[in-house]
Amino acid sequence: MSRKFMDKNFLLFNEPAVKMFEAAGKMPIFDWHCHLSPKEIYENKAGADLAQLWLGGDHYKWRAMRSCGVNEKFITGDAPGYEKFRAFAACMPYLIGNPMYHWCHLELQRYFDIYDILSEETADIIWQKANEKIAAGGFSPRELIAKSNVTHLCTTDDPADSLEYHELLAKENLPFRVLPAFRPDKALSIDLPSFTGWLADMENRAGKGIESFKELCDVLKERIEFFASLGCCASDHGFSYIPYETASEDELDSIFRAAKSGAEVSTQDADRYKTALLRFLAKEYASRGWVMELHIGPMRNNNRRMFEKIGPDTGYDSIDDQLVARKLSRFLDSLDYENSLPKTVIFTLNPRDNFVFGSMLGNFQSDEAQSKIQFGSAWWFNDHIDGMREQMKALGNLGALGKFVGMVTDSRSFLSYPRHEYFRRIVCNLLGEFVEDGLYPDDEKMLKKLAEDIAYNNAKEYFGI
Amino acid sequence: MSRKFMDKNFLLFNEPAVKMFEAAGKMPIFDWHCHLSPKEIYENKAGADLAQLWLGGDHYKWRAMRSCGVNEKFITGDAPGYEKFRAFAACMPYLIGNPMYHWCHLELQRYFDIYDILSEETADIIWQKANEKIAAGGFSPRELIAKSNVTHLCTTDDPADSLEYHELLAKENLPFRVLPAFRPDKALSIDLPSFTGWLADMENRAGKGIESFKELCDVLKERIEFFASLGCCASDHGFSYIPYETASEDELDSIFRAAKSGAEVSTQDADRYKTALLRFLAKEYASRGWVMELHIGPMRNNNRRMFEKIGPDTGYDSIDDQLVARKLSRFLDSLDYENSLPKTVIFTLNPRDNFVFGSMLGNFQSDEAQSKIQFGSAWWFNDHIDGMREQMKALGNLGALGKFVGMVTDSRSFLSYPRHEYFRRIVCNLLGEFVEDGLYPDDEKMLKKLAEDIAYNNAKEYFGI
Amino acid sequence: MSRKFMDKNFLLFNEPAVKMFEAAGKMPIFDWHCHLSPKEIYENKAGADLAQLWLGGDHYKWRAMRSCGVNEKFITGDAPGYEKFRAFAACMPYLIGNPMYHWCHLELQRYFDIYDILSEETADIIWQKANEKIAAGGFSPRELIAKSNVTHLCTTDDPADSLEYHELLAKENLPFRVLPAFRPDKALSIDLPSFTGWLADMENRAGKGIESFKELCDVLKERIEFFASLGCCASDHGFSYIPYETASEDELDSIFRAAKSGAEVSTQDADRYKTALLRFLAKEYASRGWVMELHIGPMRNNNRRMFEKIGPDTGYDSIDDQLVARKLSRFLDSLDYENSLPKTVIFTLNPRDNFVFGSMLGNFQSDEAQSKIQFGSAWWFNDHIDGMREQMKALGNLGALGKFVGMVTDSRSFLSYPRHEYFRRIVCNLLGEFVEDGLYPDDEKMLKKLAEDIAYNNAKEYFGI
Repeated sequence: MSRKFMDKNFLLFNEPAVKMFEAAGKMPIFDWHCHLSPKEIYENKAGADLAQLWLGGDHYKWRAMRSCGVNEKFITGDAPGYEKFRAFAACMPYLIGNPMYHWCHLELQRYFDIYDILSEETADIIWQKANEKIAAGGFSPRELIAKSNVTHLCTTDDPADSLEYHELLAKENLPFRVLPAFRPDKALSIDLPSFTGWLADMENRAGKGIESFKELCDVLKERIEFFASLGCCASDHGFSYIPYETASEDELDSIFRAAKSGAEVSTQDADRYKTALLRFLAKEYASRGWVMELHIGPMRNNNRRMFEKIGPDTGYDSIDDQLVARKLSRFLDSLDYENSLPKTVIFTLNPRDNFVFGSMLGNFQSDEAQSKIQFGSAWWFNDHIDGMREQMKALGNLGALGKFVGMVTDSRSFLSYPRHEYFRRIVCNLLGEFVEDGLYPDDEKMLKKLAEDIAYNNAKEYFGI
Repeated sequence: MSRKFMDKNFLLFNEPAVKMFEAAGKMPIFDWHCHLSPKEIYENKAGADLAQLWLGGDHYKWRAMRSCGVNEKFITGDAPGYEKFRAFAACMPYLIGNPMYHWCHLELQRYFDIYDILSEETADIIWQKANEKIAAGGFSPRELIAKSNVTHLCTTDDPADSLEYHELLAKENLPFRVLPAFRPDKALSIDLPSFTGWLADMENRAGKGIESFKELCDVLKERIEFFASLGCCASDHGFSYIPYETASEDELDSIFRAAKSGAEVSTQDADRYKTALLRFLAKEYASRGWVMELHIGPMRNNNRRMFEKIGPDTGYDSIDDQLVARKLSRFLDSLDYENSLPKTVIFTLNPRDNFVFGSMLGNFQSDEAQSKIQFGSAWWFNDHIDGMREQMKALGNLGALGKFVGMVTDSRSFLSYPRHEYFRRIVCNLLGEFVEDGLYPDDEKMLKKLAEDIAYNNAKEYFGI
Repeated sequence: MSRKFMDKNFLLFNEPAVKMFEAAGKMPIFDWHCHLSPKEIYENKAGADLAQLWLGGDHYKWRAMRSCGVNEKFITGDAPGYEKFRAFAACMPYLIGNPMYHWCHLELQRYFDIYDILSEETADIIWQKANEKIAAGGFSPRELIAKSNVTHLCTTDDPADSLEYHELLAKENLPFRVLPAFRPDKALSIDLPSFTGWLADMENRAGKGIESFKELCDVLKERIEFFASLGCCASDHGFSYIPYETASEDELDSIFRAAKSGAEVSTQDADRYKTALLRFLAKEYASRGWVMELHIGPMRNNNRRMFEKIGPDTGYDSIDDQLVARKLSRFLDSLDYENSLPKTVIFTLNPRDNFVFGSMLGNFQSDEAQSKIQFGSAWWFNDHIDGMREQMKALGNLGALGKFVGMVTDSRSFLSYPRHEYFRRIVCNLLGEFVEDGLYPDDEKMLKKLAEDIAYNNAKEYFGI
């Protein structure tokens, strides 16, 4: 007898899981890393229809449509929203085994109270029902965030950002806190064409010229202080691989000056610069109790033709496979050795490396925090049942799963909070499996605590807000 | 209560799977990549006994016997067929967890109607029963292919091949089509000692000298046209890793000339040559709507002692572990950028890379086909329950599993078609699991369609015959 | 209904598994690789209390405590044993999904007859009960080994060791044999600061100077003969990656001389030296029928700060990720080609490479032994349910699981033998799953034989004692 599709016990395959989820499902959300726009939260305009909410900026859905042979016109092109939605709906049944199949239905259930199954046949009815709900109100960013039971929300902000919307939001009376997070990827990407433009922006923001590596560090430190004044407690960094190359101050200066003048920077020089700058930043984070997040492994913009047509972050990224163990070890050790390793969350996009990451944590734990070095939750291409289970089993086998800070949304959509529910169901089911199998005692109180901790408490304590 | 060994619900552990397999199991077979010999199909001689059919050329079985400490005399040596068979039978019980255990029993059940379990004890009875069946007829290549419900069968042919047996077969009245597939590995392997010999063969076939890289391309293009005239719709390439190095026309010429003169070619030069030639070929495939298959990851002929004794393809290959993401991305992009990327099936022999491959697909999909870039089915060392499940779960999580072109036989034996049944049972069971677990709706019609599509329809549509 | 926590059917989830474990659980233990001290076995002093037995030297437990934010004072520091034990007990509930959770409770059950669940709440009662048992006797090394039903125990010994305790033990009347195993890591580690000190020790042991690579080989050969005279049948080697670089005798001599004089040795030169020395040693092993164990993949001493404080083997190692396929193939082939490849067990610490290793075996099998090349059991960071299942499934799919030599303890504690029980339960459950699922016949006699073989018989036959 098959279970009903996505009913209330969705993903909860054992009794202890059901009980744990009763507790964990009620916990609020500490969204410590997302890509939501503070401007949109401030302006608080509701989306016009389901096409805009779902298909306006979601590269997961775009990839799925391309995989089903849909013409780009119906993806990022100029087809009307309704037609795009129909094209997407027609793909759905073929996405068996894809987490998006669940995300979409969770969003329909939780935000729209729609329990139909999306396909070509039901597209029109769902389009109509959902848009009626949207028209009836309750779909503004703030309403969606509040409805999702979010207490804290950390956006992703460039050091050169004014943070004006964060300043404005801080004055609003909101049922949740919106905090900036420091993401200096553009400062680190000295080998990308965008660097000189970013540097000019940064000089404008700082109100002064930046002529040396040292001056860049000084300016970034000022921005860190400004971010901190607005409640920032986290930084975030994306790398296709961990660079680790040492260099002298003089070398760093000449690399910086060459890049500023527009000269091309070799990979080795870029790695030297990145290493030094990241180490500088990490020390600043450590001294403030900030968390450093390292997202390792994306290989971006693989399709030049489409990049030239529609730009970055449009669904043409995939997983890189550079070796990571040695340089990650050397980087973390270089900080630990100087007592300036911040709390750090390391994420791998390549699940091949789950055990390398899981075993790396233990090299640098200390009593500064419960699991000071965290193994970041399964993310992006791993954000599904298999990926999450594998990441948690690696962490469980190699570290202290009970101290895990849990889910990262990494989201660009105000509708994506049910992914926390998805994650929590998977957590409860995995922990419940251990109990059901006699691998962990059936201690209801402790199990409830573990589920609530991983859902919310651990993150709140770890980020220190 | 244990299930009966390999009964009619073999591998079907849930109700939806049983229903789906009722449909999928009846579908014919589109065998788009195998190593069967067109000559043997044309000549249509039946094997003499079970030893010849099973042990004459199957390096899977040879490896298994070597793993059990069997002397080479009973493997590739001069022991009588009966003794070899007995030696193999004695190994069987130790191959618990090995797909060959299932393949052998499937073949006994489906072709011989033998339901005994093969071991030292039953060796004689099975030897006798099977050989009686063989003697009674029905075991010629054409009979076996027809009995297996094959509609199309693509062999593996060198550009220098005459394709004479394909021409002869095209004139026969067969219940299935035998098509050539273009496998220019020898043309690409400029760094192997076999290159100059192959080039001489090619010159003979072409009836003219080949003095430059350009002339080689011209001749290969002529052969592609000839292959196409016989119904070819697929090419195939094997690489231990993806080479990607750019080079000028002049460099290519001097590399080619050096190799032709018998000089050693450096790895970098070989990679330059391979890249340029593969790109040339890919454009030709694209312009004809052919499919390009890339099999990546074998490390061949690891045992020099045995290579010198008994040659290649004798069971001394294993899995390579070179990094693949960046060069595969650059190669596919170089074609896509010029609008000349053919439909492409990428296979990885190293299951470590399932997610790298699964996420790579999405970078180059388009509306030219349903899942234009396909993740090739679990193959060779991955051709088992675990390998197939992992490959399909990666594809499901990252792409559109419903558009998968399914099983590749890659077979050298006329008895190996039950591997399609094996694959289909695994597919149905996996999809059925999703339904049983409430992760996909229990929509019988759609499930049947998915199972039939992956079993046959998707491949037929994709290859365009 | 959940199963009871760790009861008699712990990890046995199917009927065939229960039956198999009835047989396998009774088999004695052939401990062919551990780090127990022959001196401690000879002196036979019992531990003082549970803190000393459990926390005195177990870096697994130390890592777990650090992951839970425990201060180093309670780990390797000067806190009293009772406080350390309490700190460890408080961590336990958070180690859900960690094999240590099971190891600890297995040890409490088997050696102390304690069935309480360890946590902060039960710490005092368990502390008291366990220490009473210890005080009552039966906890000396020899008693623990005998109680664990060990028949053979191979320690880990440096070529420069006197083996005096092995000589003394050989004269004792023991219910088990203690044998040396040859571990020349320090001889191979020409690139570590420890090399010159080791060389001086070796010269003292040999009673002569060692002035060339050849003389080093001669001295090591003498030690191998001495080890053999004490019953040694196994060697062991640890590498973060497999070095394989060829060199001339002259080059080897100059590398050796430079290192002896204290000069720094380049990585390439070290690899040349290691390759040549390992090949020399392997030939010596082969000629004596010894087993060569290769443990590949640890990245050691990642935390310099803690290394300087508390030294090596204190829980600051993790998993390396260097590529392995090609060099491992070349190394094994170089020996096989000269008919001097010994029986070899290859272990990977990086589970990413399970299939590379599993497929490598088949390249070098022969009739010299049943599965002459063995895939070493899941070890260290993989020594858990998931790791063991993955290793055995890879081996099953690619080789002959029935010929597996099974569990390696790799232990530093006299209490760790229940890990064999843990392994055997996992083996029986996996094999039983195949039967329950109809993938292998329900042949009770054969299943019992497989379980007993993997538990004990295969190892005994393979090591040839």
